[in-house]
Amino acid sequence: MTSEGRPPIEVLKVAGTSRPVSVAGAIAGVIRSQGRVEVHAIGAGAVNQAIKAITISRGYVAPSGLELVCIPTFIDLIVAGQARTGIRFLVELC
Amino acid sequence: MTSEGRPPIEVLKVAGTSRPVSVAGAIAGVIRSQGRVEVHAIGAGAVNQAIKAITISRGYVAPSGLELVCIPTFIDLIVAGQARTGIRFLVELC
Repeated sequence: MTSEGRPPIEVLKVAGTSRPVSVAGAIAGVIRSQGRVEVHAIGAGAVNQAIKAITISRGYVAPSGLELVCIPTFIDLIVAGQARTGIRFLVELC
Repeated sequence: MTSEGRPPIEVLKVAGTSRPVSVAGAIAGVIRSQGRVEVHAIGAGAVNQAIKAITISRGYVAPSGLELVCIPTFIDLIVAGQARTGIRFLVELC
């Protein structure tokens, strides 16, 4: 729990080999339970899969009257001991 | 003009070779004048550049108290006579 009483935001890591439909299901699940989720991706292939997943997940939650937006920010990550800049997508209800 | 009296939404096409900083400047310019813009990208490289541009553009407009969100949807485009599926990012103020 954070100081605001909300649970810490859940993070889904996406790779270039991730299946967008599977990630989309995970995004929809976290959105339904917590209302927001972070999706992290490093590299063009991973960013592309992440965007496909977010796009598909909008269709999964739309029948429940939920609409998702995404807010991209840069994020510095350490991968295998090396500094990498990735994209963090905050996906939340609008 | 549309039937609602708003001008038609401006479209920026992004390629894998597009410079994110240049596209970000274009996004910020259209946002300031029209409040929203569409960014189209086909392929992982173009989607990656588009997301970098949207992320950078958030920083361009933030000092004016503007916050951008993006809403990705799939779009069917014809490129060189061939049907391609791309991503359409609706970028708008939240």
